[in-house]
Amino acid sequence: MSLPSPQEQLPLLTSGSNHLVSAPELLKKLSENRPLRVKLGFDPSSPDIHLGHAVTLRKVRQFQDLGHLAVIIIGDYTAMIGDPTGRSKTRPALSPEQIAENARTYQDQIFKIIDPAKTEIRRNSEWFGQFSYADVLKLNSRMNVARMLERDDFKKRFEAGVGITLTEFQYPLMQGYDSVMVRADVELGGNDQLFNNLVGRDLQKDDGQEPQVVMVMPILQGLDGQNKMSKSLDNYIGISEPAIQMFGKAMSVSDELMVQWHPMVIGETYNTERHPMQAKKHMAFRIVEQYHGKDAAVSALADFETRFSKKDIIHADLPQFAAEAREYGLIELAEAAYKNSFEITKSRGDIRKLIQQGSIQFAGEKITDPAARITPKPGDILRLDKTHAVRVS
Amino acid sequence: MSLPSPQEQLPLLTSGSNHLVSAPELLKKLSENRPLRVKLGFDPSSPDIHLGHAVTLRKVRQFQDLGHLAVIIIGDYTAMIGDPTGRSKTRPALSPEQIAENARTYQDQIFKIIDPAKTEIRRNSEWFGQFSYADVLKLNSRMNVARMLERDDFKKRFEAGVGITLTEFQYPLMQGYDSVMVRADVELGGNDQLFNNLVGRDLQKDDGQEPQVVMVMPILQGLDGQNKMSKSLDNYIGISEPAIQMFGKAMSVSDELMVQWHPMVIGETYNTERHPMQAKKHMAFRIVEQYHGKDAAVSALADFETRFSKKDIIHADLPQFAAEAREYGLIELAEAAYKNSFEITKSRGDIRKLIQQGSIQFAGEKITDPAARITPKPGDILRLDKTHAVRVS
Repeated sequence: MSLPSPQEQLPLLTSGSNHLVSAPELLKKLSENRPLRVKLGFDPSSPDIHLGHAVTLRKVRQFQDLGHLAVIIIGDYTAMIGDPTGRSKTRPALSPEQIAENARTYQDQIFKIIDPAKTEIRRNSEWFGQFSYADVLKLNSRMNVARMLERDDFKKRFEAGVGITLTEFQYPLMQGYDSVMVRADVELGGNDQLFNNLVGRDLQKDDGQEPQVVMVMPILQGLDGQNKMSKSLDNYIGISEPAIQMFGKAMSVSDELMVQWHPMVIGETYNTERHPMQAKKHMAFRIVEQYHGKDAAVSALADFETRFSKKDIIHADLPQFAAEAREYGLIELAEAAYKNSFEITKSRGDIRKLIQQGSIQFAGEKITDPAARITPKPGDILRLDKTHAVRVS
Repeated sequence: MSLPSPQEQLPLLTSGSNHLVSAPELLKKLSENRPLRVKLGFDPSSPDIHLGHAVTLRKVRQFQDLGHLAVIIIGDYTAMIGDPTGRSKTRPALSPEQIAENARTYQDQIFKIIDPAKTEIRRNSEWFGQFSYADVLKLNSRMNVARMLERDDFKKRFEAGVGITLTEFQYPLMQGYDSVMVRADVELGGNDQLFNNLVGRDLQKDDGQEPQVVMVMPILQGLDGQNKMSKSLDNYIGISEPAIQMFGKAMSVSDELMVQWHPMVIGETYNTERHPMQAKKHMAFRIVEQYHGKDAAVSALADFETRFSKKDIIHADLPQFAAEAREYGLIELAEAAYKNSFEITKSRGDIRKLIQQGSIQFAGEKITDPAARITPKPGDILRLDKTHAVRVS
């Protein structure tokens, strides 16, 4: 099979990207008729890949399908250090064992999307482990303070008087230096990585390399439709989640968000002629199909229709909830069900809102009075929200 | 001999300082009744000590005379690196041999002022030579960007849009870390070191040490009365210069500058009852006495009076100037005499000014016409300015 020409590759490779520096440079590199080295960084402190990460990984896959090489950088050196201030929960210091374990977990997941045969995996401890203070000073001489403060989040914090430690200035430099070390042709990332990736260009030029092309992808909004998808906000779909859970979560998004998600998550333009419920099922199906295959998608769709669309919730395979044989306040009962069956801690205020919104049903009845009192019996179904329900045991 | 009490030491030690953080802390440390560790840093890229440096070194000596210990930090680690941008001439990269040689030269000079028996000499390569990138990141986490940009010169350059490399942010941190490593009780320096020395306090506190007392001394103006004394501006008196040259240079300062110099250079209040010429001779005498002893000072004074005050220049031991046996323009002659006998390059414009000011004498006659033409003979004395004259050979 012969590959598309550079002119044909260009629109394919840049489709869906948010920012590209620059198209002529990418075309020039493609015309060199060699596999390009397409870099993507990975922070081993959070190995769980969700659909937000998948947006970029799918782009990596597209490069691979056109004959290019993925270069995955595992940021193990910085992960071993963590956040030196100890203030950030998202940057704990990890042991070498934890890093190895997370890297393994990460690889298992990314290889559901990208092709292991066209992937080179590198660890940045290879080079940073050798650095002396003198090397750090040399690297630091290549970047200046004003340029660093152009980064959007630094600029805002600086203007607002919110402290930026000098350590934070090191990370973009280190990430940029990774590009020098692997001689990246292209660096991919989310939109929030634009500044850091451009630093890589600067350092490569400074070192006499052709600067990497920088392409960033839009940031995927999470299930809440408000914030970027992230594990810490619990508004994500992990690509290793069970098929039924994945399907249910996808069905829970708003119609508006579904339209946004179509191109980013399943690579399709939203079909406005479809009924929104049908379109959403189609999207959920495609998501499950990507990560679990077609059979699993068919089953998940069927399960969903049984449980929710047909309102015949009794036959579905619900988690058990061992209630005591006594009267509960509805809020107390829902709180215990979330906690015991799903390990979710909901505030009483949040549960009160769910009740008032009509989300909660008990034994087939919607209950909208937060003061309602209930005596559960084995076999009763308590529906909590679109994706959570339990059977009393 | 019993030493003064802390309450008696305090005014002695703080006299002449420009800024002190803080008097109560210094008093508390003095009351601990132990030798305080008094830190002073030295940049081995410029080993020549002049009277500007001596202001601080004399303060170190004062601490020693009261029983305290000088801790001299030789910044050999940074000197080996130099300025990584290569742009700064004042920070060339030095070889280990050059650093050793400069450190030796430096020690020979400082021990004319401070007491070697109460001095500990440390090199910052001891600790920075061991640093990994991880250690640098940890150190950097203790300082923030906004704080760093409070430093006067950084602030001005940042506001003026003049680039500050990230490397420059490292030097105050490194200097501060030196204080942690030597457990400094006091750090001395020139006024321009105030910010850097306060960083040392921050880092020590962060490490659970009592923060060092910071005392900075005023910056000495150079011979020109315009700029800070510095080698690169050639407006200095080196403490190893020959006695006669030292005396002559001291006599060349303006009356105004002499008043300023009195407390900083010879530790005396200017005596307004003295005639300015007498006061200046007194100051020059004391300076020579400090660095060459009383006999040399007596000779230098006698020499000066012979040459200039008594206008009996013929008997002094002047440098020879081999003029050709022909007619010269006065400007041309003076230019050649400066160049050949003193290796000083003067512009023709400057020489014209000297002539017009009546500075130049030939064969005992003041000549104020820049167009004068002269045929020098062996034995003729050409006086150029207060400190330079030649004998034609």
